[in-house]
Amino acid sequence: MKIQRIVLITGNAGKMEEFKELIGLDQLQFGYQSLNLPEIQSLDVREIGQFKTREALTKIEELGVFDAVLTDDTSLCADALNGLPGPLIKWFLDRLGAKGLIKLIDDKENGASVTCLLSLGITKNREIIQFEGTVRGKLVSPKGSYGFGWDPVFMPDGSELTYGEMGAAEKNKISHRAVALRKLRDWLVSQLGS
Amino acid sequence: MKIQRIVLITGNAGKMEEFKELIGLDQLQFGYQSLNLPEIQSLDVREIGQFKTREALTKIEELGVFDAVLTDDTSLCADALNGLPGPLIKWFLDRLGAKGLIKLIDDKENGASVTCLLSLGITKNREIIQFEGTVRGKLVSPKGSYGFGWDPVFMPDGSELTYGEMGAAEKNKISHRAVALRKLRDWLVSQLGS
Repeated sequence: MKIQRIVLITGNAGKMEEFKELIGLDQLQFGYQSLNLPEIQSLDVREIGQFKTREALTKIEELGVFDAVLTDDTSLCADALNGLPGPLIKWFLDRLGAKGLIKLIDDKENGASVTCLLSLGITKNREIIQFEGTVRGKLVSPKGSYGFGWDPVFMPDGSELTYGEMGAAEKNKISHRAVALRKLRDWLVSQLGS
Repeated sequence: MKIQRIVLITGNAGKMEEFKELIGLDQLQFGYQSLNLPEIQSLDVREIGQFKTREALTKIEELGVFDAVLTDDTSLCADALNGLPGPLIKWFLDRLGAKGLIKLIDDKENGASVTCLLSLGITKNREIIQFEGTVRGKLVSPKGSYGFGWDPVFMPDGSELTYGEMGAAEKNKISHRAVALRKLRDWLVSQLGS
């Protein structure tokens, strides 16, 4: 069976439109659904994505109209914190903000990796396929006002700008999410053609 | 129905014996069961305890021999980190150790609270009753070799010793777990007598 009708788990219609545009395949139909899914504690973003997508599959089965669910997870691993906060980044932002996160980190060791994990859960057989995009960079004092969360403090390697200083078009060329979305797109293309 | 047969969710038989001794009620029967239960991401230890205990109730129902399940959660909230790591403490220890945790914290603002949350899930009606013990103190350089995890870096208010410098008997008089266990004991006594 070809995967053509995909529901993105998000409360944000804009995010679905962005995904749709970035994937850019007219044969696909996208929907979105806001679900309050539990996220498990782990430093392994793949494990968190698996659990969440299994839950999403169970909830979405009732709707019966989608071929697959798509969930999106983010992880930010700081070298100076031995990989923390990882997928727990949202709690760090919640309590410390992006500025507080920077304060935890020594200037001398400001390397970091950011990861976008897309988990595609196939309704029919409950198989979960994951697509991961990781970008290396460094954590710096906040610059720029685009984006949200930690965007102003992450500067990807090879760039003089933080995510927060890049417009959407520029960021969408090089971001961790763009890398993961390209992998997802390639997979979707190959199965549509098969 | 009186709660008399309680199963503690732990992989550690020693922990069950410790609980049994601290509660000290001969009318109760204790068992223990190692279950790999998902813990959800949250900074609210009560929410984590609720979710985990609901899962435990579902798994333990098959056994059919217990009146209640008991789960145990810990939270360590550092003032300097605006309440982090809270219930996420195990991931901080995993990546940074107790010494690394101390390094994140300014000497001038080393206050912290530690909480033990015991969640008692009643098999019959799936009600969950929670007992919380919180102790204030400060985070200091590691001292002492008793206990485990963050015990050597937590010094309760009113003491000159860290948990790591206290023997079990001394710690069991004043610890966050002792406070929670006394509340649980009072509840168990009152329902046994009713």
